[in-house]
Amino acid sequence: MPSAIDFYFDFSSPYGYFGSLEINQLAARHGRTVNWHPILLGPIFKAVGTNPLVSTPLKGDYSRHDIERTARFHNIFFQMPSRFPMGTQVAARATLWVQAQHPGQAVPFAQAIYSAFFTEDIDIGDAPTVVRIAGDLGIDHAALSAALGEQAIKDQLKAATEAAMQRGVFGSPFVIADGESFWGFDRFAQLDAFLKNGTI
Amino acid sequence: MPSAIDFYFDFSSPYGYFGSLEINQLAARHGRTVNWHPILLGPIFKAVGTNPLVSTPLKGDYSRHDIERTARFHNIFFQMPSRFPMGTQVAARATLWVQAQHPGQAVPFAQAIYSAFFTEDIDIGDAPTVVRIAGDLGIDHAALSAALGEQAIKDQLKAATEAAMQRGVFGSPFVIADGESFWGFDRFAQLDAFLKNGTI
Repeated sequence: MPSAIDFYFDFSSPYGYFGSLEINQLAARHGRTVNWHPILLGPIFKAVGTNPLVSTPLKGDYSRHDIERTARFHNIFFQMPSRFPMGTQVAARATLWVQAQHPGQAVPFAQAIYSAFFTEDIDIGDAPTVVRIAGDLGIDHAALSAALGEQAIKDQLKAATEAAMQRGVFGSPFVIADGESFWGFDRFAQLDAFLKNGTI
Repeated sequence: MPSAIDFYFDFSSPYGYFGSLEINQLAARHGRTVNWHPILLGPIFKAVGTNPLVSTPLKGDYSRHDIERTARFHNIFFQMPSRFPMGTQVAARATLWVQAQHPGQAVPFAQAIYSAFFTEDIDIGDAPTVVRIAGDLGIDHAALSAALGEQAIKDQLKAATEAAMQRGVFGSPFVIADGESFWGFDRFAQLDAFLKNGTI
């Protein structure tokens, strides 16, 4: 049984969103499953000394344009959120909780959060909104709401982000397959070739 | 007559090298010619507040690996130079001079410089080496050698780099076609679609 591949993403990352739409089908073509890892890029950028793409001079303006163009190029429905970048702690913590409590719903939940943010301009930084999205999927929203207030889930996301950084993750999307790292939606073609051929 | 496209590159940029191998054919498929613009990323990174890819923690290690993998993926012969990053002022100034004095030789000269650096590990920061490469192409090497010592060519490269930054150039390769900007070798597919369809 070939091992699962690891898909790291921040809910505020447009390229992470693009990746989230393709990663499961890409992996499935090669008989692989995907472990979804919500992380926070903020602490990683701070540790590494980089800035969010959109806040860098020149690069920022370019990247906003590139994001929309890349969506069109890949026929992805996309609408740049009015609040951007977005604090995604709540969404990431909620995903970790859903993964533990309702594992079968975890990917649809993460996809629903991403879609709410990048196609409907919904404020996914807002805890009641995140809880409502969970409820729409039949997830126990009262239990989720209670869990989001506890220290345990905050510590879990912090540890998950640290663990990702320990594995060399510094951006979103970031995929690790059989020890090989791929940063960016624009490396999915290389990931695909690697999974097909076992080498690249 | 459709206008030429602008190809900006730094001789120390591996992705710029990959781009240099394809840009002319890509443009020619759409009836376009290419203006080659050697620039220095150093002053641009300083102005923008970014760092060279390979000196950023995590990203640096990843990018060295990604460069070699990308070369393999595209069947590009490539050998990571032992001296990297490389000071490319001399090579860039020499290219500007060849463009002015021997325009028909300018692209082959730039390609020879890139190839010397990224396939033969030749020190293209060394002026006599750059002059020798020019001489091998039948370019007046004595005149080039003299020109490289003058202030005029230094000012010209400085102005060219400033002008690039004014147009929003912040990396290598960077292509501008009909006002549309494309950063990175990994955007050549989008550039190709844009030149084909006139929109993207």
